[in-house]
Amino acid sequence: MRAKLKSSRVARLGTVDAERGAHVVPVCFVYDGKVFYSAIDGKPKRVAAGRLARLKNIRKTPQVALLVDHYDEDWTRLWYVLVRGVAELVSVSSERKRALKLLRAKYRQYGPDLLRDDAPVLRITPRRVVAWGDI
Amino acid sequence: MRAKLKSSRVARLGTVDAERGAHVVPVCFVYDGKVFYSAIDGKPKRVAAGRLARLKNIRKTPQVALLVDHYDEDWTRLWYVLVRGVAELVSVSSERKRALKLLRAKYRQYGPDLLRDDAPVLRITPRRVVAWGDI
Repeated sequence: MRAKLKSSRVARLGTVDAERGAHVVPVCFVYDGKVFYSAIDGKPKRVAAGRLARLKNIRKTPQVALLVDHYDEDWTRLWYVLVRGVAELVSVSSERKRALKLLRAKYRQYGPDLLRDDAPVLRITPRRVVAWGDI
Repeated sequence: MRAKLKSSRVARLGTVDAERGAHVVPVCFVYDGKVFYSAIDGKPKRVAAGRLARLKNIRKTPQVALLVDHYDEDWTRLWYVLVRGVAELVSVSSERKRALKLLRAKYRQYGPDLLRDDAPVLRITPRRVVAWGDI
């Protein structure tokens, strides 16, 4: 399971909005064996970073869900790992730098423009982890 | 966008739990051009259908998010469609039968065991749809 969490290229981050509705976006992420990191990167956004739904939602409701899964037309090979935990913007500079380094090592797409040194980084600390299927 | 919503094989369904935390699971679904349907099918479940988190959550908070997306290592080709709407168990038999027929037509994997005639079906009626990226 850890290997799959580390190698998966995309996850889906579920949050709860101010009106108590659900919100989900795909995110790039990295798993260091304990916590998950995802940066507010330079991919085009519909709104400015400070207004991003995921950040607004997390400020009010930090209980997020991070889903890592695999779809396959052979349904015996389906699997998912649902991580439920607490999301927080990383405020300590050394931790943020370490997370950015891990993200750049995982995604060669992250050049200096797409992942700036001052990019905000979310830390997701797992509280409950559920695995299902071929895993 | 409609073509992608119709042809995509998997979506992620975000719900809100009783403790106001987020929950996300991958789902098979069908889009008829107006609403989305997803069945509680015969794929192995961790708990009995009546205790499934998505159903418990929807009973209390029907505001769900359905994310259809595409991940690609070429990040210029990323896209997603985030459908936020209201989920409800279909109670009218004719609508449920029609939804099951659409699901069986889309997924050849759905034989009579995996998708029973009495399978519960969720209808997700879009309220807000947001598209992002290469779409």
